Amino acid sequence: MTQLYKESKEISYYMCDRHQRVTLSMLVNLLLDVSEKHSEGLGRGETYVKEKGLSWIILRYDFDIQRLPKVNETVEIETVATEYNKLFTYRDFFVKDLEGNELIKVTATFALLNHSNRKMARITEELVEPYKAVFSKRIRRLAKPQEIDNSVYNEKQYEVRYFDIDSNHHVNNSHYITWLLDSLGSSYLSKFEITGGTITFDKEVNEHQIITSVSSGRKADELWTDHVITSDTVRHCQASFKWKTVEKEG
Amino acid sequence: MTQLYKESKEISYYMCDRHQRVTLSMLVNLLLDVSEKHSEGLGRGETYVKEKGLSWIILRYDFDIQRLPKVNETVEIETVATEYNKLFTYRDFFVKDLEGNELIKVTATFALLNHSNRKMARITEELVEPYKAVFSKRIRRLAKPQEIDNSVYNEKQYEVRYFDIDSNHHVNNSHYITWLLDSLGSSYLSKFEITGGTITFDKEVNEHQIITSVSSGRKADELWTDHVITSDTVRHCQASFKWKTVEKEG
Repeated sequence: MTQLYKESKEISYYMCDRHQRVTLSMLVNLLLDVSEKHSEGLGRGETYVKEKGLSWIILRYDFDIQRLPKVNETVEIETVATEYNKLFTYRDFFVKDLEGNELIKVTATFALLNHSNRKMARITEELVEPYKAVFSKRIRRLAKPQEIDNSVYNEKQYEVRYFDIDSNHHVNNSHYITWLLDSLGSSYLSKFEITGGTITFDKEVNEHQIITSVSSGRKADELWTDHVITSDTVRHCQASFKWKTVEKEG
Repeated sequence: MTQLYKESKEISYYMCDRHQRVTLSMLVNLLLDVSEKHSEGLGRGETYVKEKGLSWIILRYDFDIQRLPKVNETVEIETVATEYNKLFTYRDFFVKDLEGNELIKVTATFALLNHSNRKMARITEELVEPYKAVFSKRIRRLAKPQEIDNSVYNEKQYEVRYFDIDSNHHVNNSHYITWLLDSLGSSYLSKFEITGGTITFDKEVNEHQIITSVSSGRKADELWTDHVITSDTVRHCQASFKWKTVEKEG
């Protein structure tokens, strides 16, 4: 039996956008908060991992969104580490309303970083045993975000801000999402709301860097957008998102 | 007897900076969340005020900080509307640790905005009665933030981002604070932590605007900084902050 952990979260006004829905950035903050609590409860929290000279890094998110929670709504966030192999662990998150309806499913792919050589470390049984995740040799082959369509795109530059670096001493994950989405511009973002997508992280963005976020609507289907974050010649992050026309709040 | 309202809040990793302390921006988000709950409980929430064609705007914060809460700490936030006159209401916030020690006191000055003419509205008994705040004719005369010292300063520009606009359809208060502080630069911010200060809001920043945040250390005392946010010839916000050398986490 895998270990399931859940926690209620209330969606506050400051977590929401003008459509009264939680932003994707804030959603990710809430999910990671819940997964860290899960790990702490199993004696595998950040401090434990750090003492071994390691840290978990996120390589990928896959989102499937029925409905984004709205301001003042209380939701239940469930999480479970489902599977691991020697390089990756996979964790699912389910956001449910108070009637138990699934609003959002997110799968996150994690890897272990060795602090001394800055390389990926092998995942040991000892580290993941308490989660009761299933070991499977198979490394999942997941579709990459689509390359951007070079003919029609928006481009914006962002400078990493002092407070973008969080208590883990890294640019908080949520800021990549803000950079990815903000580059679409307000005319797109006011009209459409997100229903799913994939984000992959390649190389970390550091303090003082200026990054370029490029986004592009697909010619074949304007309800898909593709994204890339780069600096100089380095690619930091890629994403593809699916959208639908915004449903106005009643 | 004035109406006191309180709520516990846990400080999550994403609310904190590299010193493991809650950021001033996130602190303000938490305070306003608690004050909105207070108002809702008294039947004077945002919806009630909106139906009257009005909304509360914040004109000023005065901070007195003994210690900023740290990551994973649970604090109690108490709030009380202390006093009002025909133009302003004053609300105090107290952030306490679980032993009841006062960590932070914040006083916020609110005014009422009339949506139809965009002017300040007179505060009526009916609107504020449930808070049991004291009516006092006297309008508080509070010291303004100090003008910046033009000889030594940092300056940065920021573009308002799509997600800076929150569910109230305004640039969320917390972003002004990020702009004010970020302009100090990381060498200052890594060395010092905030112990108090004052922020005053003059004119709202709108979407698509580019603002300039200027900050300056006082010649006479480097533990004070003065700040102004402008766009073209308009002043949006001013602040003065007091600092002390950062206390490293043990």
